[in-house]
Amino acid sequence: MTHWIALDWGTSQLRAWRMGPDNDILDHQTSDRGMGALTPDAFEPALLELIDDWLPVDTTTPVIACGMVGAKQGWCEAPYTRVPCVPSQGSTIIAPTQDSRLKVTILSGLSQTMPSADVMRGEETQIAGFLAQNPKFDGVICLPGTHTKWAHISAEEVVSFQTFMTGELFSLLSKYSVLRHSIAEQGLEQDAFRTAIDDALSRPATIAARLFELRASDILQGQEPAILRSKLSGYLIGLELSGARPYWLGQDIILIGEPDLCQLYATALKAQGASVAIQDATSMTLAGLTAVYKTCIGHTQ
Amino acid sequence: MTHWIALDWGTSQLRAWRMGPDNDILDHQTSDRGMGALTPDAFEPALLELIDDWLPVDTTTPVIACGMVGAKQGWCEAPYTRVPCVPSQGSTIIAPTQDSRLKVTILSGLSQTMPSADVMRGEETQIAGFLAQNPKFDGVICLPGTHTKWAHISAEEVVSFQTFMTGELFSLLSKYSVLRHSIAEQGLEQDAFRTAIDDALSRPATIAARLFELRASDILQGQEPAILRSKLSGYLIGLELSGARPYWLGQDIILIGEPDLCQLYATALKAQGASVAIQDATSMTLAGLTAVYKTCIGHTQ
Repeated sequence: MTHWIALDWGTSQLRAWRMGPDNDILDHQTSDRGMGALTPDAFEPALLELIDDWLPVDTTTPVIACGMVGAKQGWCEAPYTRVPCVPSQGSTIIAPTQDSRLKVTILSGLSQTMPSADVMRGEETQIAGFLAQNPKFDGVICLPGTHTKWAHISAEEVVSFQTFMTGELFSLLSKYSVLRHSIAEQGLEQDAFRTAIDDALSRPATIAARLFELRASDILQGQEPAILRSKLSGYLIGLELSGARPYWLGQDIILIGEPDLCQLYATALKAQGASVAIQDATSMTLAGLTAVYKTCIGHTQ
Repeated sequence: MTHWIALDWGTSQLRAWRMGPDNDILDHQTSDRGMGALTPDAFEPALLELIDDWLPVDTTTPVIACGMVGAKQGWCEAPYTRVPCVPSQGSTIIAPTQDSRLKVTILSGLSQTMPSADVMRGEETQIAGFLAQNPKFDGVICLPGTHTKWAHISAEEVVSFQTFMTGELFSLLSKYSVLRHSIAEQGLEQDAFRTAIDDALSRPATIAARLFELRASDILQGQEPAILRSKLSGYLIGLELSGARPYWLGQDIILIGEPDLCQLYATALKAQGASVAIQDATSMTLAGLTAVYKTCIGHTQ
């Protein structure tokens, strides 16, 4: 029997979990009906298409959702909660629904105005999940991705955070720039990656020259596309590590994200003497949604 | 009467000048049949379409061409000349033609392997043009553009150069990244631009975070799109100046390029105490082609 439903509703994907009485996973479904492709009135039908069979008839089932579903362009806007805050206790909003079997709670993201304007939406739930399992954790969590987040955690709160557009830069440069003629679509050579990390850390300001050098070295010397891809990745992650040094220097770092990408960050950080541990992003999302569900239940009982 | 024809044949455009006995401009034509849209056998027809009327019937008219027309994917490849070299004395190649009224000489670009792999194709002719008019010049020439070039000039030679992908980064970020929702298509606010230059110069390593901050400040505070465009421009040019400091520090800088863009670089460099002068790109291209034409005529007489 479905006790509640967990949703991770991002820009390009909707993932749903049917949760049992002990917050155990009874079932799992995924659809490509991400927030980016939906108008506000299309969210409820898209959700029902995926989970209708899970809903008991005579009762209202709680649905807890995180991600871009709560953005201004999403189902309904869940305004950001300003840091410092406990990430599982951010503000929430109830989405308007027709079907009385549904009560959909959407989690807010986090925002910051000082020392720099910043936002996150979705990652706060992964952080909440990690802190639910490690309530005494004080340190830094890094969430590598399209927009990599670094978050200072203290006393169960996100104290401050900073976003780096590293993943998006990699994607733009490898797909749309002059480098697209030279860069492999797959593959990573560890030596080239590590050397590029060191290069970028020692000379971060020359990044725009390092990038063109990749193209020139292909034109002049016919460099292997996989080597050039590894260097591009190393330059961009190295640049980020150079800028994020105040976050990781002398800290224990928790990495939460896609395993291959986390492994790249781990390699780079370990080479700088940092201590790192990798956590699975999906597990952390589910743990975070569960923590919020428990809080909601506590509030309504 | 046409004495010779000057061509600037780039990726997206072909520009032709009909030159008189004193290297004076008799006529000028432009077409959109750039190298990027042509197969090797389409270059001669594309050229004749533009200049057929200029060609005397009974004689062969010299045509001197610079730019991507000489790339591997162009009309026929003019291999790079390695620096250090006098830019008006790089290698040239004669393009295969059917029409006996034409003798087309294509100029090579410049290449460098140490201290870093680098190439230019087209800019060397602008540098040659400036040096034809200023043969005693010793210093640095900067050619802002999609791929901005910095060149050390000494004893009439390009000694070394470095390319920064600044213009392409601006284009990718403003058109294809998450920033496209926030950035104006036009307009530049001087104060925002200058502040961003200073920010990037003092903290170049955090560029990927500064970029996301533009988006976050729009989401949280509804920043004006023209302000954000000015900041993006300032961050990227500031980052380049930080990396190119060995080129411009304590130097007199010549800027050659599109006037508005040169003005941005001039503003940024002057704020750092550098002395700059701007030269028109088209005039320098023509002066460079003329210098090469004189050399060719000298060789064949």
